[in-house]
Amino acid sequence: MSNDRCGTSRIAGCQFTLFPMSDKFADIILRALEEVDTSMVWKDTDDVSTCVRGDMVHVFDVTEALFLHTAKTGEHVAMSGTFSIGCPRDTDADSYMDEVVIPLNETKSNAVSQKAGCKFSLYPMGREDYMDAIYEQIDLSKHRNVEVSAVHYATRLDGDVKDVFRALQQSFDRVQEKVSHVTMTFTISANSPSNND
Amino acid sequence: MSNDRCGTSRIAGCQFTLFPMSDKFADIILRALEEVDTSMVWKDTDDVSTCVRGDMVHVFDVTEALFLHTAKTGEHVAMSGTFSIGCPRDTDADSYMDEVVIPLNETKSNAVSQKAGCKFSLYPMGREDYMDAIYEQIDLSKHRNVEVSAVHYATRLDGDVKDVFRALQQSFDRVQEKVSHVTMTFTISANSPSNND
Repeated sequence: MSNDRCGTSRIAGCQFTLFPMSDKFADIILRALEEVDTSMVWKDTDDVSTCVRGDMVHVFDVTEALFLHTAKTGEHVAMSGTFSIGCPRDTDADSYMDEVVIPLNETKSNAVSQKAGCKFSLYPMGREDYMDAIYEQIDLSKHRNVEVSAVHYATRLDGDVKDVFRALQQSFDRVQEKVSHVTMTFTISANSPSNND
Repeated sequence: MSNDRCGTSRIAGCQFTLFPMSDKFADIILRALEEVDTSMVWKDTDDVSTCVRGDMVHVFDVTEALFLHTAKTGEHVAMSGTFSIGCPRDTDADSYMDEVVIPLNETKSNAVSQKAGCKFSLYPMGREDYMDAIYEQIDLSKHRNVEVSAVHYATRLDGDVKDVFRALQQSFDRVQEKVSHVTMTFTISANSPSNND
C-alpha cells in the first residue's frame, strides 16, 4: 500500500443507486440521465448500482445533478451511495483524469430548487485517530446553510439539495486532504410523504 | 476511545432504507413490517432511513426479513444500509441487549425463496492493516452458496437472499472479532428489470 498523493489528480469515485418510488422508475431515471452531462466521468451501471469515477469535482457534480433532475419530478426519490478516494488497490484505468475540472452540470443544477434530507457518515481509513477527523467535520458542517443534527451512526443534513451536496463534498474533501483513503456513505431523500415540513 | 469487548453483548446496529420502486411503496413497506417481528430490536424510522439496534443476530434477522417480505411481492425493490458495531461514542441506550438471542424471523424467512444481487464493502476502523482484514473476508465469502465477484469499491454477491445475508453476517462477524469498530455498507436489489437472469 502506498500513501503517495498527487494533489487534484487523485481518482475519486461513487458507487450509488437512484431509487424513484414510482411505477415509472425506469423512465424517471432515463429522463434524468438525458439531462445530465456525464462526459467527464467513467460510468458503469448494472442492476444493483451505478459507479462513476474521475476527478472529485465531476463525481460530485454528476451525482448531485442526477439526484436533482430525478427529484424535481415531484416523485418520492432517494439516492444511496458511497464516495471513495485513495483506495490502495485503485487504478487509473477507469477514469478520465486528464480533463479540465469545470463542473459541467452546475448551471443547470443551480436552476433547480429542491429540499431534501440526507444522512451521511465519513470513514477515514487506516488511522487510529480517525474519530478526531470525523468530529472536526461534524463541527464544520454547521456553517453551510444546512441544518445539522446527530443520529445513530450518521450525521443528518437538511436543506436545499445543492447546499447538502456542497456540505458533503467539503466534508469529504477536507478529510481526504489529511487521510489518504476516505469513504463517505450517504442516503438522500426528497418528496417523502413522511416528511410534513 | 476504549477497545473493551464484551463478547456477544456488544450492541450492533443498522441504518438502512427500503426502496420499493412502485407507486404502492408505502403499502408494500407497511405490509412487510406487519410480517416481521421487530420486538427484539430498538427501532426508529424517519423520512430518510430506519435504524435498528440490538444484538447482531437480531439486527441481521430483522433487516433480512424486511427485505425478503418486501421482495416477495415481485416488485422491483432494493435496500441500502450500513451495519455498525463498536463505534467508540456508542452507548447502551436505544437497544435491547438483555434478551435471548434466537432469530425470531428465521422460520418465516426460510419459507421464502428469492434471488437478489448485492454489493457490500467492509470498513474495519482505526487499523493501519485494515486492507488485510478486507481481503481475508473476500476470500472467505467464496464458500457460502453465493456467486462472488469484484466491482469497484465493493464485492458483489449473487444468490438467494438468505445466503446473501448469511455471507454478509459472517463477513461482518469475523472482522468484528478482530477489530473493535467495524462498519459494512450494502445495497441489495431484487426483481430488477435490468437483470435478465
